Amino acid sequence: MTEGNGDPIARMTLELSRLPGIGQKSAQRLAYHIASLPLDQVKELAAALWQGRKALRFCARCGNYSQEEYCPVCADEERHNGQICVVRDARDVAAIERMRDYKGLYHVLGGTLSPMNGVGPEDIRIKELLQRLSAETVTEVILATNPDIEGEATAAYIARLIKPLGVKVSRISYGVPVGSDLEYADEVTLAKAMEGRREL
Amino acid sequence: MTEGNGDPIARMTLELSRLPGIGQKSAQRLAYHIASLPLDQVKELAAALWQGRKALRFCARCGNYSQEEYCPVCADEERHNGQICVVRDARDVAAIERMRDYKGLYHVLGGTLSPMNGVGPEDIRIKELLQRLSAETVTEVILATNPDIEGEATAAYIARLIKPLGVKVSRISYGVPVGSDLEYADEVTLAKAMEGRREL
Repeated sequence: MTEGNGDPIARMTLELSRLPGIGQKSAQRLAYHIASLPLDQVKELAAALWQGRKALRFCARCGNYSQEEYCPVCADEERHNGQICVVRDARDVAAIERMRDYKGLYHVLGGTLSPMNGVGPEDIRIKELLQRLSAETVTEVILATNPDIEGEATAAYIARLIKPLGVKVSRISYGVPVGSDLEYADEVTLAKAMEGRREL
Repeated sequence: MTEGNGDPIARMTLELSRLPGIGQKSAQRLAYHIASLPLDQVKELAAALWQGRKALRFCARCGNYSQEEYCPVCADEERHNGQICVVRDARDVAAIERMRDYKGLYHVLGGTLSPMNGVGPEDIRIKELLQRLSAETVTEVILATNPDIEGEATAAYIARLIKPLGVKVSRISYGVPVGSDLEYADEVTLAKAMEGRREL
């Protein structure tokens, strides 16, 4: 098949190559694979993407992806325990939910502060978090942004805003990942792990 | 978003993870990315995959992907120069077309002989190739299957069948790195391989 605008494989390749982590070669490989699939399976794939995207909106409370006005977490009355876990994006909610241990609510910022990239406090959902603190009964805000420079700066910024309101603010701890090998931990992480040690 | 059957992100992830080279983690990453895209762009992507797949069929002559009864190569009278280049799949046609040097027709086998995987001569389009040799004016069959064990075996098998018919049979030369995949060969290497082909 020669390439051109009207070429279905070229069009598939173009659209697939716009996805993150999929280069030109991978996109073409995927396109040829999709061309070889049964019609039914391609229909399922296309429908999952399009209908899935169409079905999603943002939870009116926490900003997580949701099919209803409130996401399943916010819709669950038992999760309204006074805790709000603040994360960068919906993927982080999924990661924390997989651990099946956290019983409170979330707040999705939709990004982290990044002056270099022109992302300021008004560009992420900090105002909405403050509004929740006055509207809901909140006993603790757990800052679970990433342990990198932007995540740290964002956590520090939010902590400074919230502490004067008399709400407990905490930050997830640094340390060596469970199941990992101490030998491969970087020095900064090891130092943080020593610093955060607890008496047994 | 918690996971479940009715969860659009879980459904996207499932469908994407069925594609080759996309594991569970990448699929989830892509699903969240797609969830964050503008509706229009997801519509474009889904339409490209579904409409693209629907528009494709096999060329009635060479077996390449085509939107019409005959693919653009077979539909071009100037390409009917007596040469037929035999390849494993449509991706290889695209690779050879990119070098813009080959002026003949193709024959897509749709696989290579592989006794280990139960693929015999009747499972790939060898019979159709023999039919073309009697129906068309063919002066040379260029065997351009991959330079690996299965590709070599397939080329040798076809050469044995065709030589008694008095048709010139050639094999692309080992300009292509042994053990590699034709699809990933650069244009210059491919051109050298075509140039250095030897009669079998």
